[in-house]
Amino acid sequence: MLVRTIVVLSGLLSVAAGPHARLRSPKKWAKKPALIEVLTASSSNSTAFNPVAVAPKTNIFISLTDDEAASVISFLHNQTELNLTAAADAGDWDNAIEVVDLVPPNKTDALNYLDNGGLVPGRFALARIAFGASEEPWLQDFIVGPLPISNASKYASLDWATTSGSAKIRNYNADEDLITQWNFNVTATVADIVLDLLNGTATGSDDDTFDIWGIDPLWMEEIDGEERVILWNTYWRFPSGEDAIFDGKFSLQSPFIAGETLLPQGLFFKSDITGRDPSKWGVLGWVYGGIFYSTTAEFRKAWSSPDFVKYELNLPGSWIGSDRVGEPFPGDSTAPPVAVQPDAGQRFSVDDAQKYVEWMDFSFYITFTRDTGMRLYDIKYKGERIIYELGLQEAIAHYAGNDPVQAGTAYMDTFYGFGPYAFELVAGYDCPTYAHFLNSTFHAAEISTTHRNNICLFESDPAYLMQRHSNSEYLALTKNIVFTLRSVSTVGNYDYNFDYIFAMDGSIETVVRASGYIQSAYYAKNNDYGYHIHDGLSGSMHDHSLNWKVDLDILGTDNTFVKHKIAPVNVKYPWSNQTRSTMQLQRVRVENEDDAKLSWPRNNADMFMVENSDKPNEYGEPRAYRIAPSRGGAGMHLTIENSPNLLKSQGFAKHALYITKQKDTEPRAAHANNDYDPGHPLIDFDEFFNSESLNQTDIVVWLNLGMHHVPHTGDLPNTVFTTAQSAFIIAPHNYLLNDASRTTRQMVRIDYNSSGVQLVKEFGGKMPSGVINMSTIQPDFYDYEGDIATRKFPYDPLHPFNDTESIV
Amino acid sequence: MLVRTIVVLSGLLSVAAGPHARLRSPKKWAKKPALIEVLTASSSNSTAFNPVAVAPKTNIFISLTDDEAASVISFLHNQTELNLTAAADAGDWDNAIEVVDLVPPNKTDALNYLDNGGLVPGRFALARIAFGASEEPWLQDFIVGPLPISNASKYASLDWATTSGSAKIRNYNADEDLITQWNFNVTATVADIVLDLLNGTATGSDDDTFDIWGIDPLWMEEIDGEERVILWNTYWRFPSGEDAIFDGKFSLQSPFIAGETLLPQGLFFKSDITGRDPSKWGVLGWVYGGIFYSTTAEFRKAWSSPDFVKYELNLPGSWIGSDRVGEPFPGDSTAPPVAVQPDAGQRFSVDDAQKYVEWMDFSFYITFTRDTGMRLYDIKYKGERIIYELGLQEAIAHYAGNDPVQAGTAYMDTFYGFGPYAFELVAGYDCPTYAHFLNSTFHAAEISTTHRNNICLFESDPAYLMQRHSNSEYLALTKNIVFTLRSVSTVGNYDYNFDYIFAMDGSIETVVRASGYIQSAYYAKNNDYGYHIHDGLSGSMHDHSLNWKVDLDILGTDNTFVKHKIAPVNVKYPWSNQTRSTMQLQRVRVENEDDAKLSWPRNNADMFMVENSDKPNEYGEPRAYRIAPSRGGAGMHLTIENSPNLLKSQGFAKHALYITKQKDTEPRAAHANNDYDPGHPLIDFDEFFNSESLNQTDIVVWLNLGMHHVPHTGDLPNTVFTTAQSAFIIAPHNYLLNDASRTTRQMVRIDYNSSGVQLVKEFGGKMPSGVINMSTIQPDFYDYEGDIATRKFPYDPLHPFNDTESIV
Repeated sequence: MLVRTIVVLSGLLSVAAGPHARLRSPKKWAKKPALIEVLTASSSNSTAFNPVAVAPKTNIFISLTDDEAASVISFLHNQTELNLTAAADAGDWDNAIEVVDLVPPNKTDALNYLDNGGLVPGRFALARIAFGASEEPWLQDFIVGPLPISNASKYASLDWATTSGSAKIRNYNADEDLITQWNFNVTATVADIVLDLLNGTATGSDDDTFDIWGIDPLWMEEIDGEERVILWNTYWRFPSGEDAIFDGKFSLQSPFIAGETLLPQGLFFKSDITGRDPSKWGVLGWVYGGIFYSTTAEFRKAWSSPDFVKYELNLPGSWIGSDRVGEPFPGDSTAPPVAVQPDAGQRFSVDDAQKYVEWMDFSFYITFTRDTGMRLYDIKYKGERIIYELGLQEAIAHYAGNDPVQAGTAYMDTFYGFGPYAFELVAGYDCPTYAHFLNSTFHAAEISTTHRNNICLFESDPAYLMQRHSNSEYLALTKNIVFTLRSVSTVGNYDYNFDYIFAMDGSIETVVRASGYIQSAYYAKNNDYGYHIHDGLSGSMHDHSLNWKVDLDILGTDNTFVKHKIAPVNVKYPWSNQTRSTMQLQRVRVENEDDAKLSWPRNNADMFMVENSDKPNEYGEPRAYRIAPSRGGAGMHLTIENSPNLLKSQGFAKHALYITKQKDTEPRAAHANNDYDPGHPLIDFDEFFNSESLNQTDIVVWLNLGMHHVPHTGDLPNTVFTTAQSAFIIAPHNYLLNDASRTTRQMVRIDYNSSGVQLVKEFGGKMPSGVINMSTIQPDFYDYEGDIATRKFPYDPLHPFNDTESIV
Repeated sequence: MLVRTIVVLSGLLSVAAGPHARLRSPKKWAKKPALIEVLTASSSNSTAFNPVAVAPKTNIFISLTDDEAASVISFLHNQTELNLTAAADAGDWDNAIEVVDLVPPNKTDALNYLDNGGLVPGRFALARIAFGASEEPWLQDFIVGPLPISNASKYASLDWATTSGSAKIRNYNADEDLITQWNFNVTATVADIVLDLLNGTATGSDDDTFDIWGIDPLWMEEIDGEERVILWNTYWRFPSGEDAIFDGKFSLQSPFIAGETLLPQGLFFKSDITGRDPSKWGVLGWVYGGIFYSTTAEFRKAWSSPDFVKYELNLPGSWIGSDRVGEPFPGDSTAPPVAVQPDAGQRFSVDDAQKYVEWMDFSFYITFTRDTGMRLYDIKYKGERIIYELGLQEAIAHYAGNDPVQAGTAYMDTFYGFGPYAFELVAGYDCPTYAHFLNSTFHAAEISTTHRNNICLFESDPAYLMQRHSNSEYLALTKNIVFTLRSVSTVGNYDYNFDYIFAMDGSIETVVRASGYIQSAYYAKNNDYGYHIHDGLSGSMHDHSLNWKVDLDILGTDNTFVKHKIAPVNVKYPWSNQTRSTMQLQRVRVENEDDAKLSWPRNNADMFMVENSDKPNEYGEPRAYRIAPSRGGAGMHLTIENSPNLLKSQGFAKHALYITKQKDTEPRAAHANNDYDPGHPLIDFDEFFNSESLNQTDIVVWLNLGMHHVPHTGDLPNTVFTTAQSAFIIAPHNYLLNDASRTTRQMVRIDYNSSGVQLVKEFGGKMPSGVINMSTIQPDFYDYEGDIATRKFPYDPLHPFNDTESIV
């Protein structure tokens, strides 16, 4: 929050307010300023450093502005051949714009601008349109531009960014309302059975007991020689009403309710939903207690028989709530240690409008997309680009189970999008109270939604040193102050925390953590697929595999991926008569895409480098960045290599990491629309591999984080971040001539002997001073506001409205 | 430091001062109290919680007191058959006591006391005696007791704690003074060559240029049918005098100087030092520039020839110093964020005298040994023991190189000991200013040395949450406050930071980090063994392998190690006509020591559990703790499986982890004296494996951390902790019925909708309040004092003296 205070104090409001300042409510600016006392106490120190940066180059990666999005939408509505209906009015049989976003510039054009004084690349929009007005509905991505919209602006199918050759993908699930009604209709045929087995109803009324939903993505199944669209559904109990979780004071009513994913009920039905005419749909069977009944009649008959086995209910209760429980710890009534920002305030600079950041020797640009949330571009270190692009590609959550819904579920979360669910963060919890916050905007359904304060930036001390050495005469100690960029996306039940952590040694760590509710399974006969964790509940096993694009550029784009192997060898030395068992450093270049699907080695025996072989340091060692797992063990990729759910859409998740030649036509490892038809995806990552040379060329590393998650009782009510985290780090390796952290002032040397300390040498790093009134840095949780939205068609920028309903 | 303040304020000085209070200088107690203002500002909160604990049981693992050590030493001197000489007077040909320490009680006896109300186990001392008065000198461990010394006290060879069957080990290196003189004598024969090639001298005078030392451990080599003791030495340049590191104001003089390990000179000689008569010793050859000369004459002849190739000098300079260098960062002149302890002070309780700690639902006892430093015993969680013993066993640093010294070096650091080098920590750097510090004492060479403030305990916030979930109606957020126990041992060039981190979810993480100076190699022709990192310098590749004993006891001692495998399988489900590729959870018990040498699986595909199979939770899942790698990738064990340096002393370092049946006769994986004769070790870990059943019995996990370290330019001047860390975590797994962190008060729930926040629910966790004057929590680095020593024979407890010279 500090930046607001500083901004006001320094009179730079217009510079720092950012493109979304108009969206902020006046109340926001009246917020109690934090840390005022500190600033006053030591303001003399603040003159040397300016926390407001001015981006040296336009952020050519920045998300579309509201005006840009509005003009693109308006332009498209003028293209009569598209036959668009305004999103607010569109039904399943209309054509409507789903998403508008930026098409990032081609890398060649971007580098020409960034490095060679070339022109700012033309700016183009992505428009994702759902074509519902057809018996065979589809979605299609278009490129629109250049922006701003003018007579020169055109639109075209964005075919070149796919491996399928077409930006079109079939939508077999265009009639969600019909499917919802179908589910109620099917349930009505067995309402007595549902009441008997599950003790509840699902009719579409407000007092329904159950939510009905199932597999994702849909299956294609050949039946009688014809490909049919298959949906397996199950019943999930709403944790509302008398079963309200928490303390009963607050009854949750939203359709996608906290804790619902802990309440599967164990009854499943299979529907053939091929085509758009529900009268031609059919029920293809039921599952209960692990037994398959191929017709409703067969199921009813079995249920009617006296030996039918009924299983226990999986009921809600306080075990689902995340509020505090149990006997409190005596020591926990007082406030724990907390980080404060003393002295002159923040030590990094931000250009809020350009989303450009400088911290110590690092600088980078931030952008935000609907599909993948926060992304980083043009990360420079000591004036040289080290990463062109760093960001999430896709997050798979692949389940397994004895029932068809768990077995059939493999979420590809960019389908839902990480942007829409990257909510406002809470100072004092999600981020330190002194963090700097940025807003982010995405454009969906012809509404621009701004998440207030959904990215935070802060320095912190991880409570261990960067460097130390001591001997009988001195100690030398260096603090490890790190700089974190954070956003959190809650995609349904799971909260994904994304951190990019920059350190004084030149390293950058990418961390993902998961909390929130697991998606669970009904327990009956599921013991091969997870633990029994509550009455009637199985912690359904699943794999999280999250893919990152890491486009490292080490001293230019011509780079090589090299394995430095620590290899056991036997050597006959000139100075020994015996052959000795020892080890050597062996350098193996990955020179071709054929060899570029890699595992992390057993026993960490290989070090992976991205080096510029043509730019050795003065000792002849190629300057490089190393890339290595850093938290949560090494990994993770999917256990299942031929998933019947993901089909041709899992290519990026079969290995720990991959190297490919950079191509503007291969910008992403996955496509948010792959989920519509994973057997015929828009982007099939396997197609990136075509034996191209990787020898001193522009290469991209695609790397998986994640975890095999077999939820146990400790995942109730929520998975905890502490044991559900995974990370990789890139670190300079023979890149500079010494440890870069030697530049910091945050170190001390103490020379001493038996007579005591003889000399204390500090290096200009001020110790904290001033007075901090802890009460003034207490967050006010009533400030939380959630999102603000602006309608785009018709464009109504003067009437933004709060809209938290978009938050799942 | 806070405890001192609290102690003084609460008048509990005598309780909390600890057994070593008498060793503290009066000055220490006059130290400026920290955080006084905070305490004053909110002292009303401090009444509920008492930071002073009273251990529920005597710490039966605690190190020997000074009195105990003195009495043991006195007792041994009375045993005339030992023919002991006071350590201060002893020469190489005398018998002298090297170390006195505790022999921990047998586990059976300990549990009888801890759990069953049995007697306090008899207390016994270890005495390690060097028998120099022999042509074949040896060391031997004795057990002495019971303590206190009485007529009933006896001593005996501690044979039962070895696998060799004898506590004796030969010392082939008993005459260090003679070897030092030998090195100078050998050098004198080539003084002109040394001057020519290395530009310096090594004669034993005060202005010597070079230090001479070499391989560790010594080699045994068969020459002409006879086993000979071999020492390879090399020349290391002192970074003193005009080449003083740092800024020239402070000239380092100690024999083991910072940075010396960066100055190998590339000339090596081989000595046969068999026996105790130097007149029978001989030079067996020289190495320079990768060429072996089998006699001094041959070497001289080659050097005299015109085509002799000379290599560049490896000279000291500012590149060795760790002081700040380079253009400072603009933002770095102000103080970075810092953690403070607001409100009522520390939230954990310590019995300083008993070294007993309680934090939230955890409690444990600390001890400290000369060989392995800080250790934990009887770690309880929610009243149940989960770990009986947790501590370091051994730390190997195994080098490789083209030269005989690097190729021949494989340090086993308990030989040097982690206790002697676990120095005083610096508040504000090594630990937060608000940390609680403990002293530790070890007894060596008949002196008891107390490291002041060398263990610190503190809470901190690692800047990410324990739990979060958000949806359109609420957020639930829980802080992740962790509790760290830390010590740092600087064994020569390397600083090892050891952390045990306790978390609210019931997990404990064990972390080791390395900083300090690398031991490097001269560069000539060493490119297969490391990078060229400075003029004439190679970053000699080496493996760090540190073994931990993790004696988990889950609900009693009868436990089983189970692999929970996430396995790809093909399944034909009743509800599908096709066989589907999916995954299952497979539980594989490790029931016998024959199957108990394990690797961390590729792709994290196995989860490792220690469970009590007889104690399932109410859902039938065995209650367990999981054990998993958590930082730095998975690993690490030695690359070299048949090290000619370690021979039979590396058994514990060939695999990632091992399971054995617990035996009081197998208390440690290694012995500090193995280094004397690694081919005939006192403890050969391989001997622990004898096909015993591990099925529901008392099992011990032996686990390796570490790294393959191929130092690059970023290791100059010092390796940094950030990328040199490795850790494992144990975490409850189906152990409780929900996430244990739900008990903390440090959480908030925010209910909201489009109209704003409707409810903020807190849970009794106070937000920080009060005023903190940051100036008062600035550490005073002039407080650093180092160690204090007390002579034991004759015992002189009234005259302790400062002694920093023991600090290597």
